[in-house]
Amino acid sequence: MTQTLTVDLGDRSYPIHIGSGLLSQAAELIPIDFAGRQVYILADINVRSFAEEVHCALEPHAERVQKLVVDGGEQAKSQKQLEIVLEWMMTNRVDRGSVLIAVGGGVIGDLGGFAASIILRGIDYVQVPTTLLAQVDSSVGGKTGINTPQGKNLVGSFYQPKAVLCDVETLKTLPERELKAGYAEIVKYGLIDRPEFFEWLETYGKDVLALEPKALTDAIETSCKAKAVIVAADEREAGKRALLNLGHTFAHALEAAAGYDGRLLHGEAVSIGLICAFALSSKMGLCSEEDLSRVRAHLQECGLKISLSDFDPQIEEDVERLYDLMLGDKKMDRGVLKFILTKGIGQAFVSSDVQQEDVIEVLKAV
Amino acid sequence: MTQTLTVDLGDRSYPIHIGSGLLSQAAELIPIDFAGRQVYILADINVRSFAEEVHCALEPHAERVQKLVVDGGEQAKSQKQLEIVLEWMMTNRVDRGSVLIAVGGGVIGDLGGFAASIILRGIDYVQVPTTLLAQVDSSVGGKTGINTPQGKNLVGSFYQPKAVLCDVETLKTLPERELKAGYAEIVKYGLIDRPEFFEWLETYGKDVLALEPKALTDAIETSCKAKAVIVAADEREAGKRALLNLGHTFAHALEAAAGYDGRLLHGEAVSIGLICAFALSSKMGLCSEEDLSRVRAHLQECGLKISLSDFDPQIEEDVERLYDLMLGDKKMDRGVLKFILTKGIGQAFVSSDVQQEDVIEVLKAV
Repeated sequence: MTQTLTVDLGDRSYPIHIGSGLLSQAAELIPIDFAGRQVYILADINVRSFAEEVHCALEPHAERVQKLVVDGGEQAKSQKQLEIVLEWMMTNRVDRGSVLIAVGGGVIGDLGGFAASIILRGIDYVQVPTTLLAQVDSSVGGKTGINTPQGKNLVGSFYQPKAVLCDVETLKTLPERELKAGYAEIVKYGLIDRPEFFEWLETYGKDVLALEPKALTDAIETSCKAKAVIVAADEREAGKRALLNLGHTFAHALEAAAGYDGRLLHGEAVSIGLICAFALSSKMGLCSEEDLSRVRAHLQECGLKISLSDFDPQIEEDVERLYDLMLGDKKMDRGVLKFILTKGIGQAFVSSDVQQEDVIEVLKAV
Repeated sequence: MTQTLTVDLGDRSYPIHIGSGLLSQAAELIPIDFAGRQVYILADINVRSFAEEVHCALEPHAERVQKLVVDGGEQAKSQKQLEIVLEWMMTNRVDRGSVLIAVGGGVIGDLGGFAASIILRGIDYVQVPTTLLAQVDSSVGGKTGINTPQGKNLVGSFYQPKAVLCDVETLKTLPERELKAGYAEIVKYGLIDRPEFFEWLETYGKDVLALEPKALTDAIETSCKAKAVIVAADEREAGKRALLNLGHTFAHALEAAAGYDGRLLHGEAVSIGLICAFALSSKMGLCSEEDLSRVRAHLQECGLKISLSDFDPQIEEDVERLYDLMLGDKKMDRGVLKFILTKGIGQAFVSSDVQQEDVIEVLKAV
């Protein structure tokens, strides 16, 4: 059973297919006529067997299919790795009819999408996310990018794929830690503007994490829909889209402090970031302590990280540096740091009116 | 007297102002409220005094104005130079409200526009072209990019500026050779689809090259309009926009062969490329020999290069390599090399039906 939803962006609209065993149907599910076209598959080494499935599915239809297998850790989102991908395509005489397919987690999607957006000023791009995080987050919205020494995703583009295939089979080989990290983003959608979804997760979240097919597919679909509605209203993040950054200003600073070395996964940072956002809102008298407790309880019950000391006791001594890293985050606009705050579960909003002392106290407390 | 035309691209529309002494009016002419914003001026070292004028005009209005002065030769369109520009902005804490202003020729515009399009996934961008070529070509259409060892502009983006200021005063310091090179692109617009403009140029071209204000402003305005009409119909070069590449498949190969070392300017390559396109069309029986002669006569009369041996007798012995370089040009689609051919002056069209032998013979003859 395949569920399909459309991300509605005018002439940049595209389908997301969610289901089991989709990779072998790639040629039928992707709305591209592959005849005479070159296909470039960029794959994470950890999922090369899935990339192979896509390769086999497309080979009879395309002019030529080539694969580049890379290590998909966060360090792959570098200027150097980008150059390797671009050079791979250029030396193989990429042309404007070529298609790039990224098979892997968010890192591969962000790197592949960015490469596709700037090679020959943009070629067709298809995403095959193989982590829960990528399926519910980067599959919608067209954000691509790489990291630099100055911070995460400071260089990139908005570029929509032609299609996304979310094959839940690929999640069976995903380490439990990564599964949980992805789950934090699912929780985020409930917390932004879908209180009934958060309630549903309080009941069925364990089934999602146990990869129970129905609960899993439903959770992915609701998450993609939630994000698609927000992105359709604000593709280039001029306003409402900023809500998707609930917990992320904190999370990005934590990741920068941790040095992207694998000690702290993005979703784990988001889990802590969500608590920080609720704690800050509660401290500012915007949201009830009960809602903060409910969020913390659910994340903890699901085995997610909920405190800085869960991963590195050192970092707590360095909260001033964390705040400084937040100032470098690109959600700054005209020198003002924007935070996503909340009036309660499902009631997030954008605020530029946050005191440095409050942020630092919250970091110390969490 | 300032003339203004609008490039009509829906919510990406922008004005081009053409006139004398525009730089000191930058704050009034650019439709951006600079209050509280950071301004990053990327300037060619050869026109730093013009960049200074823009700096002074904006300083009272913006939060902060900074300049980066670079050597504006074709070698500046490199991966390395791009990284320098990005790093300059990142270490100065560029934010989403920041504005990048490129002051210089096409190289600076392409580099600056590309940097603006990918820093923080895109910030506002303003172009101040200071060469005739940039004023009539890269000021319209939003193409940005850098060169790689594999070829010219293989990496880049489509990104529209918020405004373009074409100040004809800046052309007074332009070397005559560069002025002529820019003139080749003006001639191109006549040859594509404006036979009456080509006729006008046969009469007034010398006045344009003598920087006679009225003729110059008119020629720039007609050129920008001609390009704007084509770009508005086909922003991302799916069809009609390819016409703007009249002479360019040849020109790019010539430039690649010359190694971008300044021996051959882009406009000079275009001049030869225009002759090649007419010679090929004539050879294929599509266009009259008279039209070919008329084009050659006008370019020669204006002192433009019209033959390969005008710049490097060596290259003629290597026409097979030139053809190979054409195959690497990004106007390839699904393995087919597209040429812009013509049925006569003002009657260009796109063709995929060109024989290798004909191309090679034309190269040998020209």
